[in-house]
Parts: sequence; structure tokens; C-alpha cells
Amino acid sequence: MTNADSVRIRVFSLNCWGIRFLSKLCTERYAMIGDMLCKEEHDIVLLQEVWSEKDYLFLKKKLSLSHPHSHYFKSGVIGSGLAMFSKHRIRDTFLYRFSLNGYPYMAHHGDWFGGKAVGMAVLSIGSLTANVYVTHLHAEYCREKDSYLPHRVVQAWELQQFVRHTSAGADVVILGGDLNMHPQDLGNRLLRSYTGLRDAYLETDTFNGCEDGVTLIADNPFINKKELGPFEKGIRIDYILFKGSSKVDVFCDSMSTTKGSVPDHPFPYSDHEALMAELRLVSHTPIETGREKCIKEKDSTAGRVAELVDIVTEARTEVKVGLHCTESMRYTAARTGVMGLALLLLELAIAAVPWLALGAEQPFPLTSFYLLAALCFAILLTTFMLYILYTMELKSLQGAEDQMRLAVGSLQENLRGFPLAQPHVSLRKPPEGVSVMDQEE
Amino acid sequence: MTNADSVRIRVFSLNCWGIRFLSKLCTERYAMIGDMLCKEEHDIVLLQEVWSEKDYLFLKKKLSLSHPHSHYFKSGVIGSGLAMFSKHRIRDTFLYRFSLNGYPYMAHHGDWFGGKAVGMAVLSIGSLTANVYVTHLHAEYCREKDSYLPHRVVQAWELQQFVRHTSAGADVVILGGDLNMHPQDLGNRLLRSYTGLRDAYLETDTFNGCEDGVTLIADNPFINKKELGPFEKGIRIDYILFKGSSKVDVFCDSMSTTKGSVPDHPFPYSDHEALMAELRLVSHTPIETGREKCIKEKDSTAGRVAELVDIVTEARTEVKVGLHCTESMRYTAARTGVMGLALLLLELAIAAVPWLALGAEQPFPLTSFYLLAALCFAILLTTFMLYILYTMELKSLQGAEDQMRLAVGSLQENLRGFPLAQPHVSLRKPPEGVSVMDQEE
Repeated sequence: MTNADSVRIRVFSLNCWGIRFLSKLCTERYAMIGDMLCKEEHDIVLLQEVWSEKDYLFLKKKLSLSHPHSHYFKSGVIGSGLAMFSKHRIRDTFLYRFSLNGYPYMAHHGDWFGGKAVGMAVLSIGSLTANVYVTHLHAEYCREKDSYLPHRVVQAWELQQFVRHTSAGADVVILGGDLNMHPQDLGNRLLRSYTGLRDAYLETDTFNGCEDGVTLIADNPFINKKELGPFEKGIRIDYILFKGSSKVDVFCDSMSTTKGSVPDHPFPYSDHEALMAELRLVSHTPIETGREKCIKEKDSTAGRVAELVDIVTEARTEVKVGLHCTESMRYTAARTGVMGLALLLLELAIAAVPWLALGAEQPFPLTSFYLLAALCFAILLTTFMLYILYTMELKSLQGAEDQMRLAVGSLQENLRGFPLAQPHVSLRKPPEGVSVMDQEE
Repeated sequence: MTNADSVRIRVFSLNCWGIRFLSKLCTERYAMIGDMLCKEEHDIVLLQEVWSEKDYLFLKKKLSLSHPHSHYFKSGVIGSGLAMFSKHRIRDTFLYRFSLNGYPYMAHHGDWFGGKAVGMAVLSIGSLTANVYVTHLHAEYCREKDSYLPHRVVQAWELQQFVRHTSAGADVVILGGDLNMHPQDLGNRLLRSYTGLRDAYLETDTFNGCEDGVTLIADNPFINKKELGPFEKGIRIDYILFKGSSKVDVFCDSMSTTKGSVPDHPFPYSDHEALMAELRLVSHTPIETGREKCIKEKDSTAGRVAELVDIVTEARTEVKVGLHCTESMRYTAARTGVMGLALLLLELAIAAVPWLALGAEQPFPLTSFYLLAALCFAILLTTFMLYILYTMELKSLQGAEDQMRLAVGSLQENLRGFPLAQPHVSLRKPPEGVSVMDQEE
């Protein structure tokens, strides 16, 4: 660290809305974003929806002096759209692609083609190791009838798993991005409760930005007001989250967002507002470590675990709803496929055995025959591929549900203050948590 | 731990070859495996190719007393085939699906449908936390002309990333499975060098099993000797790897494999041999921690890092070869698609404008017209889907290559003994490692 005891880190996050030829004023906005980032010199810049690598390379060139370290996370067909720029050395990177991310046939929604993911970079900030995550979850196209909700919940589940399991060696954890979830949405609660990540907006006393920290606002000229639905004041779906470790305490000294316009420019950076958080990392002295322990112990009180059990159970219910829907879609695909096959066989039978055509004077017209056969093949091929697709979706949903069930069992075990299972004890009588889990399978 | 200072853990790994209706004597072999596991009571059982959930549930029921904790990892269309049974409590699980895993149109190879992955379970062994991984990499169908080599190298890369980044909080790390790689294959060296995992077969003084520890042997009645090619004595592709931590030292006291037959049974458990390793976990006393530090420092000597740079560079070359092949396959798909489109347009033109048929007396026969049109559509659809598939493959290969380049830069930085990059230093003159990386992009 530059200072012996504390260091300040400025973190920036923005969904760039960078669909070439489709997003309005894309080139102009990237130029504005590049100028601003160059000038502001944030320590860490987390960008989403940088869909074109050319735009990433443009920014990389522009920020080569202010942010010598950068990474572009590649995934899916188009790319994950995730990019990171840093003043501090990026030692290592890792990408986790979410197992569920919409459907390829919903091409107008495009999420599937983006290959949504969470990118991680291990940064050296002085002597500290910071794990920095940038992510973008599946969009919410209709809040009332959100068919992607199970997908987003599974993404939130995988996100919290990834952060939790990869951050054990980090002194500081920072996550930024477009979560596509309201602050109190299930996935958001799941992420924050399970990982212990704290919301920069809620943690700071000094906030300068849109009311309630919203990042999708009606005042933004790129926003169609209808998109906001009943949330006329705007929606908060972009976040900067953080947590410290046993070595380092993290505080959010200030936070700000853009407010739908940029001074001296006729339009804003994007259809989302940009976020900036100033974090202060404070190293523990050995005496403080004891205090940290107390905080940790307090954190893992029964209340917190009980809340987590409730949230995971809620997530599990949502995944089960998804399972039910996907099973019914797979069944429909299978049934349609069988009908296509039956039609094809019937046609072949009529063509092969003339007396089946029930006294028709003409033979089966050849043109109709070929057209009908082509239709049958098209049905068979499409339903076969849909069946494969839905089977994969089912496997992912079942996998997430299994993991959630196991997690609930484990948490309940903690909650009951049971001793850790010993092999010899388990041999005779498995602890209650286990039997609950087993019965449900 | 049960004993104050050391605890013994018996680990078992087996590729079960469990393709229902296709693998020989599947049901009988599962019954044998279940009996043996029940009797042997290994602490941790890692199984691969348990392709049917029914077989997993059969084993789960059979092992409910000896191994009360278990998990089945779901992925892909069929499932990952990975299963874990444990005498110790499984606190948490996580699955990483490899980004590359063969092609769906290579259905006879089947790997794509399996959704190859690495499964992780966090176990409580007394007061210790053990991260246990079970994995299965893409099969090698032809060693001389291995078109899946780039995929397997990327899988090994992602496997080492996953293990390295998720095991920081673990006291003990154990990985078992069918890596489908010979001991000195690139992916294997990459995995062991980068993670520091040690090979149980090489670490033990007491080995009882096939010569050279091979796990695919000609003596196994389920093996077609041709499969072994020039390796008549057999091939070692199944492994149990492990490492300790700053808190715990791990030693492999003994290791054994089956030898192609099972006493009192007419056939073996599988077409692979089973592996058993007895590990001894020894907790450090505070004095020993100093020694561990010395070992750690010794581990990270220049020699080890230089070797790692060479291996990652070799892997990067292999990924580049893969990139080249995939680019050429994508180009072929695109060219074929364009030809299909041209054919369709030509056909439509001939049908629409009679004089184009160059003096043909008859109009375009309707049957031929429909057949040709159907063919064109089939070509267009197929090439479009192949284009999407190859684009996704390219993104994954490019992503892995980017990560490898960054890793090499980072390792070289370590090697040169450069001080950690400070923001203010970086602003003026980026360190050499960075400029190398930047130039290459």
C-alpha cells in the first residue's frame, strides 16, 4: 500500500450499451467515455456491454497511459461484453460462464448470444491482493411475467458461489456490474447475504447522484419511459459491492452516479447511469485482528444464518418453478416431434400403398409430397434440437437445485449448532440435516 | 481431526464406464462396485462416467450407511457423469463446466453431450477443510491426429484455474479423476506445475498395482487392445492428486490400483482400473509453520517459475493451432453457406425469368425445384449453425489464449524479480512484461 495503513481506491462501473450500428451514437459515446476515464483516472474501471472488441481496443489504446492494465472477457457468440481497466497490475484472470442464459431462439433478446458471465481479475494493489469481479446478468424484459427469472436466480446463485469460493485468498473483494435486479430482488439478496458483500450505495454517508441511487432513469434521453413501467422515478440495477477480509477493513467514503446528462455534452454516456465509489482500505494492526474475529463471529450468528436459509429456500422454490416450466416445454417439443414423425410415416404409407388414398382418383401429387416431407423433416429437426436445449436447461436447473438443497442442509446444521459430523458417528446415525436432504431426493 | 496431529484419509477413484445398454455388464458391475465400496469404506469416493442418475441413486442407497454424504454433478445433455461419496460432511458444492468440449455433431464420440466439467465439494474432515475435486476431461480418440487436443489443453487450463482460485481457503486439496492425458502430456504438466498438486503415484513409496501405475491395460477384458496403440503395457490416464497448505502437510503413505480382474468375480469393475490412495494429513505445530514457509519460498524459486512459463507458452501455442483450425472450419462453413445462398438465388431466378433457362423447352420441373430449394435451405441452416458453433469455439480459444498471455507476462514479471507495479510508476513507463503483452495484441 502507498500509505502505511490505508489506501484509497476509486472504482467505476458502467453498462456501455455498445451494440454497434444499433445503439444510438455508439462511436460518439465511446469517445466521451474514453475522454472521461482518461481524465478521471479511476483505479478500477468495470465496463459491461462492450459488445465489440474494436471498441475495447479503442478504449485500451486511449487509456494506455492512465490504465496500463486491462482485460476483455470473451464468451458466447458475440462475447460477454465485460471489460476491465486498471491502474494496478492484473496478475491473473478467470471467467465463469453462467450455465443458463436465455434461449438461442429468442434472438431479439440476444442474451444467449452474449454468453453472460462473471469475469474475475486478481489485482496487486501495493502489497494487497484484490479480487475484482465484473458481471452482467440476464436482462429483465417484463417484470410482471418474467420468464427468465429462474435463469437469473441461477445466475445469481452461480455468481455468489464463484465469488465465495474464489475470494478466500483475497484481502479485498470488489464486484461491479449490471445485475439486472432491483435492490431487494431475490437474486440480489442471495448474492449479498451469502457472500457478505456490502452495497456501496447503502454503506456510504456521502452520496451524490440520482435519488435512491437509481441507474435507469426517465431523464436519460436514450431510455424509453415505458421500459420503466411503474417505476417512474427509475430503477437501481447497477451496483458496486465490496468486502474486506481478516487483514483489511473496507469503507465506502463516497459514492456518486451520473444524472442522465453530462456537462458540455448533448447526450449521456449510455442508457444506464455510471457509478463511482471511493473505497478506503484499512489494514489491521495485530490488535485489531481480535476485533475482526469478534465481528466475524457476530456476523455468523443464528439470525444471519436463518435469514440465509430463508433466502436459499426461496431461490430453490423459484428454480423449481423453472424446472416445472422447462419440463412442460420439453414435453411440448417431444409431443410435436412425435406428431411430425407420425405425419411423415402416414405420408410415406399413402405414397407407398395406393389403396390407402381412399379412392382418390389421382395418385399423391408429387409436389405436395415433397412439400409435406420437407415440413415433416423441419418439424423433426426443430423439435429434436429444442429437446436437447431443454434437456440441458433441465440439467442446469436440477444441478442448481441440488446444490441449494445441500446448502440449506448445511446451513441448518450450523443453525442447530450440531457438532460437525464425524465419520464414526455418521456410520450409526446420520445427523438430522442429512436425513432431511436424503428424504427429499 | 480425530487424532490430535495426524489423520488418515483413503481416497478412491474410478471411471465406471456406465453407459446404460451400451457398456458391457453395466448393472452387474455397479452391483460389484457398490459391494466393494460398502466393504472398503474409503473416506472419499470419486466416480466418473456414472452417466445415468439411476445408477447414482442405486449406489447412494447402497452406500447410505458407509458414505452418508454424496453429490451428483449435473451438466450437459446427459450429465457430467461425476459423482462423489464421502464419509465426511459435504458442506458445499460447485461445478465448473469446461467452455470447450468437442462438437455436438460428433455424436458418436459423445463428449459434447456429457458436458464435461470439474465438480468441487468442500468437506469437513474433523476441524480441517478439504476441497475435493472430481473431473473427467475430453477423451483422446487418436493420439497421432488428435483434433481435440486444443480442447483438452483448454480444459486443463480451466481446471488448473478453477483449482487454484477456489482452493485458497482449503487446508487440504484432493483431485481425482480421468484426465485422459498421459503423465507427461502438456495438460498434465500444466495442471501439476501451476497448482502445485502432487501425483499420489509418484509420491508414495508403497505402490501395489499395475506396472508404471497404468490404468488402461491390455489384460482388462473390456479393453480392445487396438485402443492402446503402441502403448502395449498400458496407459496411465487416471490420477489422484493432492496438496497441503500452510496449516497441513499431506503425505501419500500407500497407493494401489486394480489389475484387470477382481478376486471371486469373472470380470473387473470397469474398462479402467480403480485407484486407491492412503493420504496422511499432518497438522503443523507453530514451529513447523516456519519450515513450511521455507518450503513455499523454495517452491517459488526462479526455476519453477521458468518451467511454468515454458509450459504455459507451449499451451498457448497449442491453443493457437486450435484457433487456426477453427478459423479455417468457420471459413469453410461460411463459404458453403454463401454457395448454398447463391444456388438458391440462381434457382429462384431461373424459375422467375424463363429466358434464363437458356433455350430449355420445358419450364423448370416443379419437383426438381422443390427438392433443390429444400437442399439449399438445409445447407443454409446447417452452415449457419456451424458458423455460430465455431464462433463460440473461437471466443473460448481466444479467451484462453488471452488469459495465458496475461499469465506468462505475470510469471515473467515474477521471474525478473521486478517490484510489484505501482500505479505511479506504471503511469510513466509500464514494466517490460506489460509492453510485451500489449504489443502482441
